[in-house]
Amino acid sequence: MLATVFRAPHKLALVSVPRPVAGVGEAVIRITATTICGTDLHILRGEYPVAPGLVIGHEPVGVIEELGPGVHGYSIGDRVLVGAITPCGQCRACLSGQLSQCGQGHGTKAIGGWRFGNTINGAQAEYLLVPDAQANLAPIPNSLSDEQVVLLADIASTGFGGAESANIKLGDTVVVFAQGPIGLCATAGARLMGASLIIGVDSDEHRLEVARHLGADVTLNYQHCHVVEEVRRLTGGGADVAIEALGTQQTFENCLRCLRPGGTLSSLGVYSGKLALPYDAFAAGLGDHRIVTTLCPGGKERMRRLMSLVESGRFDPVPLISHRLSLKEILEGYRIFGDKQGSVLKVLITP
Amino acid sequence: MLATVFRAPHKLALVSVPRPVAGVGEAVIRITATTICGTDLHILRGEYPVAPGLVIGHEPVGVIEELGPGVHGYSIGDRVLVGAITPCGQCRACLSGQLSQCGQGHGTKAIGGWRFGNTINGAQAEYLLVPDAQANLAPIPNSLSDEQVVLLADIASTGFGGAESANIKLGDTVVVFAQGPIGLCATAGARLMGASLIIGVDSDEHRLEVARHLGADVTLNYQHCHVVEEVRRLTGGGADVAIEALGTQQTFENCLRCLRPGGTLSSLGVYSGKLALPYDAFAAGLGDHRIVTTLCPGGKERMRRLMSLVESGRFDPVPLISHRLSLKEILEGYRIFGDKQGSVLKVLITP
Amino acid sequence: MLATVFRAPHKLALVSVPRPVAGVGEAVIRITATTICGTDLHILRGEYPVAPGLVIGHEPVGVIEELGPGVHGYSIGDRVLVGAITPCGQCRACLSGQLSQCGQGHGTKAIGGWRFGNTINGAQAEYLLVPDAQANLAPIPNSLSDEQVVLLADIASTGFGGAESANIKLGDTVVVFAQGPIGLCATAGARLMGASLIIGVDSDEHRLEVARHLGADVTLNYQHCHVVEEVRRLTGGGADVAIEALGTQQTFENCLRCLRPGGTLSSLGVYSGKLALPYDAFAAGLGDHRIVTTLCPGGKERMRRLMSLVESGRFDPVPLISHRLSLKEILEGYRIFGDKQGSVLKVLITP
Amino acid sequence: MLATVFRAPHKLALVSVPRPVAGVGEAVIRITATTICGTDLHILRGEYPVAPGLVIGHEPVGVIEELGPGVHGYSIGDRVLVGAITPCGQCRACLSGQLSQCGQGHGTKAIGGWRFGNTINGAQAEYLLVPDAQANLAPIPNSLSDEQVVLLADIASTGFGGAESANIKLGDTVVVFAQGPIGLCATAGARLMGASLIIGVDSDEHRLEVARHLGADVTLNYQHCHVVEEVRRLTGGGADVAIEALGTQQTFENCLRCLRPGGTLSSLGVYSGKLALPYDAFAAGLGDHRIVTTLCPGGKERMRRLMSLVESGRFDPVPLISHRLSLKEILEGYRIFGDKQGSVLKVLITP
Repeated sequence: MLATVFRAPHKLALVSVPRPVAGVGEAVIRITATTICGTDLHILRGEYPVAPGLVIGHEPVGVIEELGPGVHGYSIGDRVLVGAITPCGQCRACLSGQLSQCGQGHGTKAIGGWRFGNTINGAQAEYLLVPDAQANLAPIPNSLSDEQVVLLADIASTGFGGAESANIKLGDTVVVFAQGPIGLCATAGARLMGASLIIGVDSDEHRLEVARHLGADVTLNYQHCHVVEEVRRLTGGGADVAIEALGTQQTFENCLRCLRPGGTLSSLGVYSGKLALPYDAFAAGLGDHRIVTTLCPGGKERMRRLMSLVESGRFDPVPLISHRLSLKEILEGYRIFGDKQGSVLKVLITP
Repeated sequence: MLATVFRAPHKLALVSVPRPVAGVGEAVIRITATTICGTDLHILRGEYPVAPGLVIGHEPVGVIEELGPGVHGYSIGDRVLVGAITPCGQCRACLSGQLSQCGQGHGTKAIGGWRFGNTINGAQAEYLLVPDAQANLAPIPNSLSDEQVVLLADIASTGFGGAESANIKLGDTVVVFAQGPIGLCATAGARLMGASLIIGVDSDEHRLEVARHLGADVTLNYQHCHVVEEVRRLTGGGADVAIEALGTQQTFENCLRCLRPGGTLSSLGVYSGKLALPYDAFAAGLGDHRIVTTLCPGGKERMRRLMSLVESGRFDPVPLISHRLSLKEILEGYRIFGDKQGSVLKVLITP
Repeated sequence: MLATVFRAPHKLALVSVPRPVAGVGEAVIRITATTICGTDLHILRGEYPVAPGLVIGHEPVGVIEELGPGVHGYSIGDRVLVGAITPCGQCRACLSGQLSQCGQGHGTKAIGGWRFGNTINGAQAEYLLVPDAQANLAPIPNSLSDEQVVLLADIASTGFGGAESANIKLGDTVVVFAQGPIGLCATAGARLMGASLIIGVDSDEHRLEVARHLGADVTLNYQHCHVVEEVRRLTGGGADVAIEALGTQQTFENCLRCLRPGGTLSSLGVYSGKLALPYDAFAAGLGDHRIVTTLCPGGKERMRRLMSLVESGRFDPVPLISHRLSLKEILEGYRIFGDKQGSVLKVLITP
Repeated sequence: MLATVFRAPHKLALVSVPRPVAGVGEAVIRITATTICGTDLHILRGEYPVAPGLVIGHEPVGVIEELGPGVHGYSIGDRVLVGAITPCGQCRACLSGQLSQCGQGHGTKAIGGWRFGNTINGAQAEYLLVPDAQANLAPIPNSLSDEQVVLLADIASTGFGGAESANIKLGDTVVVFAQGPIGLCATAGARLMGASLIIGVDSDEHRLEVARHLGADVTLNYQHCHVVEEVRRLTGGGADVAIEALGTQQTFENCLRCLRPGGTLSSLGVYSGKLALPYDAFAAGLGDHRIVTTLCPGGKERMRRLMSLVESGRFDPVPLISHRLSLKEILEGYRIFGDKQGSVLKVLITP
């Protein structure tokens, strides 16, 4: 089968590799839609190390091709969505309700339950082996197309997760720093949960426009205003919730500075290098602040819930798809996505 | 009346000042017991600025001497405990359930609802004016002595608050960094909430002994072992909760390094300077970690609850009182406390 | 001043009574808008006893006329909304965060902190004395009219409260039994909080139409279908949340029968007589069910939050006002409301 | 192998049946300790129907004898504890964190994830087939004996669960109705979570003595006092939490009557027939009450946590074992347990 393989930093290849076979508790799906994620760019650039030879990609939509022993209640040919994170449901972390940290309760590194395109072969291929299939194959309702669900696997689950971890309450004020795909989904999630004022921050006017479409009441271009002062003015002294969706010192710090005492910083970014907590913005530790981080929630029940929000018209992820390419064109997709050409948001790949 | 007044950095004086008079919603109590807090040392040393002329101290036990208009349900002569933080109960923060951040929801600095010995006269005196008395005068049961309740005003409320904010669950593993008075109360709080393994960390062998008495299963002297490695070994890969009770980069960072993915860092320390979040210990933001900070909960209901724990024998704060002095000897008390003489923990002051 | 006074069962009178005067911690407002509540009908019919001579009504919008000693931060002439429940903020219940049960933590009957038109004079008059004014006067933003905020005092706060107490999560399925004013607000609240499927139940086609306008995805007329079966079919086995907004055995029981195992019944109704929990619907106590009840949340911060939702366009209560009368016509208003004439929902009264 | 088989109401038999064989995802354990549960008596008496021929019992301790395909990380010979409820970890209910309702999210009857001795063969036998073994085999630390852990499978997990679902907070007042094995564990759980006043209610003086030993501050014999009045007096107006551990109208109703407004009724009993909610005790629905029910939490992580509490000396279940018999004597055990002979609490069975 055709697959996108990591060879070395700055070197991806579309090559033929053997089709996977389902073992106990596993399934093989034929991929019908997938996308390229920012994390894939980190892998391509060598910033996040994976083993040479690995098939990458972690946002799979497909059709069940083979079911291993012990997987019940599915039929060959069922259309399914699989989350980017694939919890087993049966380890210490999963049984504690921390599905995203599957397999991580025992002293290993905290990259959580993320396996596709990280520790096992991923989704940018014609076929995909799904581990712990019983916990991870989510049937797609007939009323929904592949395009309508593929972005739920990672960016919507993560973005909404940032709003949920912040425990947004009716009437909260929320500021979301960075309006890339995940930040846009955090904006939409804050809207879905009942925030009364949502402020989207970015410097890309196209993204700010999409933010307003998805739920932001106000957008701020940080190149044209003093964001912290403006947020404090708009919220009457500080936001209830600040969501970080980029992964830089500047946005993390600004989140803290935008919060009222007792407020919550919900962090979604992936950080590198030292991260500072300015002690003044942190009120010297006396501000009853809360900082929470969220790794993309996965599992078939999470995917079912997200699909129900699309099905009932609460959320439409399709506007986030800016480009559509075939698997054969995926290297071109990486170029477009990496260079942020043409107001790119997400690139849909169909094998 | 006699009162301990801040004159200038490194200059406290025991002088005579006018007795306060109760206005609308206020009360005056005659102090019968109070103590010296670590924060008072920061004030004395000029590290935390207050206005010259201010009476300091914020841990008051006394007898009602005068009740202003609008304060009901109390009688002159009632013995009362007042928390270090005095919420009004009627502002935006209080009505949101964030009593410690009283008056702070509107853009002012986040020092929370702490007023005694900070923005108004405090408790190291013969008399004390209590603001918002209806919300803050907690009657002391006859069965409890002044000594049994005075430490509830601040250190027990704060220390227990650190355990409560961490949301400790039955069977959790908890590590508490620093076993000063607040850390010791956090240790006791973790025990009260049902942690199955509590690890106390300090370098003072006397404090580690008190920690074992108050609920630590294991104590670690950081001068004699690699604390992070040891905690990870004892907890089988990382603690569920790490409580910081000192306020330094080292202890904050070690807390993070001791946590399992999905664990909670509950911070009680008062930090100065830049505080770093090592991105590796923070799992680059992907560890589903939670960082919470807690300012001493106050108000009469909080004090009533804490007193009920002492009354039923669940917690005995008296062993934390290492020295007993009269108000006239308070400057000597500051010397003992500041120099950490003779295994000092808390100095009781009785006017 | 003119006021609506309860004389005896079935006997209200619009009479002249002395204008109130503000004491310590109190304020007097000149009423500019109020409404008639279902509870007022219970009082009128003698089903809920109040003292003869009492001014009734508990949904006040007005202008500050007088401020008593100890009330700060307001000016004569400020437009304010006051919640139906007026917490003091300073008693045991309030300081525990249970503002609706103000004053009730000590063995008295549980009618909560509801005082207007219940234990003290109410809002269907030209002037109103507001107790604990510091905690209860919520300034109305200039951008909002009286009509836009008057229904927040009780029905929106209660209806939204039913959704909030149920802890509705993104993607939940919710059924709301009865689409009177409170049920309609519960429907709107469920929509605001991110439910993916909201089912409204009633027998009045006009109310079902309003329900669809306010957020119901599906409405069921219980006269034309088997509601429990239909809900179980639509939700794939049982709703996550069922909200009771009427107060009868039938609706309470149907809520339970509609729930999935582990689901939540959020009860807003006022019940009379014996209420049965069918043991089969209750899974013999083994279904991990949760039953929560909610009394209208009050206080100025609650009102501020609700007004922020109207201001940002998230919720428009004006369509719930079906009739507009002057205070002089209030007895006619009671007749219209009591007889459910002309698709009546709420009757606005302007002195 | 020898096994205790249900033949018909009032007819159990100890007979020889084929030893089970482990399929995909399953394990076989050789039972080394088990007990008889009150539910087994309901089965024996025909009050809870199971299929004739079923092996009963659901509290298994044993040694791994066989591991099916797909079960990893265990070795033949490992000592393990298995919970009474055996969640799969991979269905909709499990992935939503409601492990006790495993397999029940889809319209089937709510008996939750209870399978042993209910829908599949149980533990009162020489060997036991464990379904979803990966999620359910909890290794027993060497330091703990079989006797120390066998009661964790059901009664401690259920009793503690009642305290946990009530969300007991530091300083809460708690009343526990009925001090049978589960009520005693609820009493111990309330103590572990930091309640400041725990009141145990029963009529059996021996059980009340054990209650005081396990954590009750006060015990009330309902034959000698008016329990509701006494609880309201001791708690100053109503308990924060009332736990029902019997399953009768009288105890359920008394729980409600003992609560303060805003209090929580945590129900553990198994009810039969109609259950009434007296509308007065329920405050007509206006008391902000919460009623929660809890089915025994299961899974290997739950068992690990409970074992950690025994290992650290927080809880000692051994005093609850009043009788010790061999599997051959189990019918005698049923007689003793059923007749409540000789202060029986729990009967230990060792094959």
